[in-house]
Order: sequence, then structure tokens, then C-alpha cells
Amino acid sequence: MDKVDIGQHISQQFNAELEEVRNRVLGMGGLVENQIANAVTALVERDSELAETVVSGDYKVNALEVAIDEQCSHILARRQPAATDLRLIVAVIKTITDLERIGDQAERIARMAIRLAEAEQPKNQYIELGNLGNHVREILHDALDAFARMDPEAAVAAAREDLRIDNEYNGIMRQVITFMMEDPRSITPMLDIIWAARALERIGDHAKNICEYLIYLVRGKDVRHTSLEQMEKEVQEAHKK
Amino acid sequence: MDKVDIGQHISQQFNAELEEVRNRVLGMGGLVENQIANAVTALVERDSELAETVVSGDYKVNALEVAIDEQCSHILARRQPAATDLRLIVAVIKTITDLERIGDQAERIARMAIRLAEAEQPKNQYIELGNLGNHVREILHDALDAFARMDPEAAVAAAREDLRIDNEYNGIMRQVITFMMEDPRSITPMLDIIWAARALERIGDHAKNICEYLIYLVRGKDVRHTSLEQMEKEVQEAHKK
Repeated sequence: MDKVDIGQHISQQFNAELEEVRNRVLGMGGLVENQIANAVTALVERDSELAETVVSGDYKVNALEVAIDEQCSHILARRQPAATDLRLIVAVIKTITDLERIGDQAERIARMAIRLAEAEQPKNQYIELGNLGNHVREILHDALDAFARMDPEAAVAAAREDLRIDNEYNGIMRQVITFMMEDPRSITPMLDIIWAARALERIGDHAKNICEYLIYLVRGKDVRHTSLEQMEKEVQEAHKK
Repeated sequence: MDKVDIGQHISQQFNAELEEVRNRVLGMGGLVENQIANAVTALVERDSELAETVVSGDYKVNALEVAIDEQCSHILARRQPAATDLRLIVAVIKTITDLERIGDQAERIARMAIRLAEAEQPKNQYIELGNLGNHVREILHDALDAFARMDPEAAVAAAREDLRIDNEYNGIMRQVITFMMEDPRSITPMLDIIWAARALERIGDHAKNICEYLIYLVRGKDVRHTSLEQMEKEVQEAHKK
């Protein structure tokens, strides 16, 4: 079974509810992707106004988390789902927690963008940050896409991309430290660059968590705390069965 | 209703299962508290050996998360809990995610302790870090205690303590930045102090999350994304009813 078939329910109504929850998660994911994109653009382009919209928009992400959470609790209480349906609800409850925390990181980046827009700094760190931001957004997009298509292979591929994020993050870190040592006056603004890079790296981790929940949901196998190689093996073996 | 009465179930067996889950969460919490304590001691005392035990002990935290998660899924599938029982299971699923992430932060601090044990640095930053570490551990302890006693007032009090953590964290940050500016050679080791302080501050946030889940569990009210004042009001109003 390559894709989870949630289409064969006795209750059409229940089907529609599960579908609605999935769509709301994807909608929340799209909103969060947008928040990241705007936060990173605001940082790179020194656009405080755009950054303000990210900060003031975070409440929408929070509200969606609370709403979807409630919907999941209602479904658990009234529908008493089992097997894949139950795993879907548990995966959703976990996924939206990570999406909400990604939203918090985007807000954090936006706040730094506001501070950094006022500081006088060379632009090269921003270019690296912009690249890191784009890659992080791609991973989140791929993770959500894997979730939309219930595709564990795509989830493993997205999780694997997180390694690239870690390398890019370490590269920025080395560069920033050199810069700080050469010019101690740059320490305070450089620390903001560090926090922004750190926030992006954390978003990559959250995206990877979402991939792991999806694999658990489709395969019924908990792949957290295992290596990428093990994760790939699990998915391939389940494929052969 | 001041405490949740989970003792009036038709099924004694179900009762025992819920009790077991709660005890396992508290056990996991105790283990995580211990990991923080050892990580901070290792950092302050420059004890690499102790730090190694924290790093090698993290798998136990991870294993508990996976095991409790599975137990919760089984209970959801077989027992189809409703109302408070359902909220307990959802709160547990969320709480153990935060406990696992706290474990990761403790491991992170331990890794820094290993690196910092080799560096030559004045001790004063370590004292501040040690204090911050103790306060963070206290908050987590209070949060878990509130969970054990199902006491939302205690949860609000613990959540309120997180503000003190943030202040202490900001104090350390200011101190470290001054230090870096005075002596650029200290930048690399000082960054490790920053990461350790940051990790402790994050643990405080996770402990606060646990408080919020507990309030949701007992009061049936979602208090995330609200201010401490609102949280307190919710708990007090529910108390009057």
C-alpha cells in the first residue's frame, strides 16, 4: 500500500471531517510558509514594514493551532477513530504544534529584521541568510507536500535535506565569528544574525519532525530518534511488503 | 471542582492504565530533571565525565517518549476515552514531546560542557549559568508537581516563574556581550556560554508549555497564546464556579 486510503469509510461525514482537518493543516502550513518568506525577505531587504506584518500576523497561526486542536479532540471524542484514522489525528496534533513553533521562529526573525534594519552592516551575511531561509522554506514546503500526498518517500527525502541546512548554518556561524573577531564593534548586530540563522535552523528541525510524524502516520512505525539511514530502510522495507 | 477526580471509573482496569501513564510521565520528568541537573553541574564544575553520562543517557528519555506515546495511542484506540480522560491523554502526548525536547537541550548543554571544560575562562559566567540552571530545574519540577497533583493554580505559579528566567537570561546575555567586546579572543568560548544560556531559557519555555497543557487538562480551557494575567483569571474564575 503506497498511499493511505482514507476514502473507504462507512461514514461519509467522518471522511469529510478528516479531509477538512487535513486541509486545515495544509492551510496552516501555507500561512506559516508565507510568514517565513516574509520574515526572511524583510531581513534581507531591510524592510521593517514587511517585518511588522509578520509580527502582527502570528496570532493567525496561533488561532489555527487552537482551532485544529479542538477539532481533533472533538473527532477523538465523537468518532473514536482507530488504526490509520487515529494515527492521522495524533500526527495532526503533533504537526500543528511544530507549525505553531515555526510561526514563533518566523516572528522572532521578523523582530530581528526590525532591529537590524536600523543597524549599518555589510550585506554579505544577509545573502547567506537569504539562501538559508529559502532552503528552509523549501524543506517545509516539501514536508507539507509529503503530508498532502501521504507520501513517506517524499518525507524521507525532505528530512534528508535538513542535513544541508545544518551545513549551511555552520558555514554562516563560522563566517560571523570571524567577522566578530575582526571587528568587535560588530558583535551586537552579528549576534542578531546568529539568532536569525539559529531560528532558521530550528525551523528545519521542525520540518523534519513533521516528516517523521508523516512516516509514522503512513507506516505505523515510529522513526523518531533513528538515523536517516534507518528511516530510509524502514520506508523501503515497508514498500516491499 | 478543585482536583480532577479520575477515581470514579466503571473500569478499574482503565483507571489503572491512566494512572500508569501519569506515573510514567512523572518518571520521564524526573529523569529529564536529572539530566538538566547533571548537565549544569558538568558545565559549572568543568566535569567532562559527568557531561558524557548526560549525552549517553539521552536515549533513555527518547525511549520513554516513544513508549508513552504508543501507550497513549493504544488507550485511545481500545478505551475510546471521553471528556477529562481524553484531555489527559492529549495533554500527555503533548507533555512528553516537550519533555523529550528538554532532554535534547540538556544533551546540548552537556556537549558544551565537554567543549568548555577544555577552554581557559574566568568562572563568573559559570556561576550565573549555574543559578539560571537551578531556577530552570525548579520551574520544571514545579510544573511536574502541578501535573502530579492536577493543580492548575500551581501550574499558573510555575508559568509565572518563567518571567524570572527570561530576566536572568537577558542579564547573562548583556554580561557576555560586554565580555566579548572587551576581549575578542573570548568570543568563541563566550558563544558556548550563550548557547548554554539559550538552551536553559528554552527549557523554561517548555516547562511553561507543560503548565499550559495541565491547565487545559483540568479546566478544559485552552490558555496557550494568552497572557499570564488572562491565564490566572481563567483559573480563578473556574475556581469560583
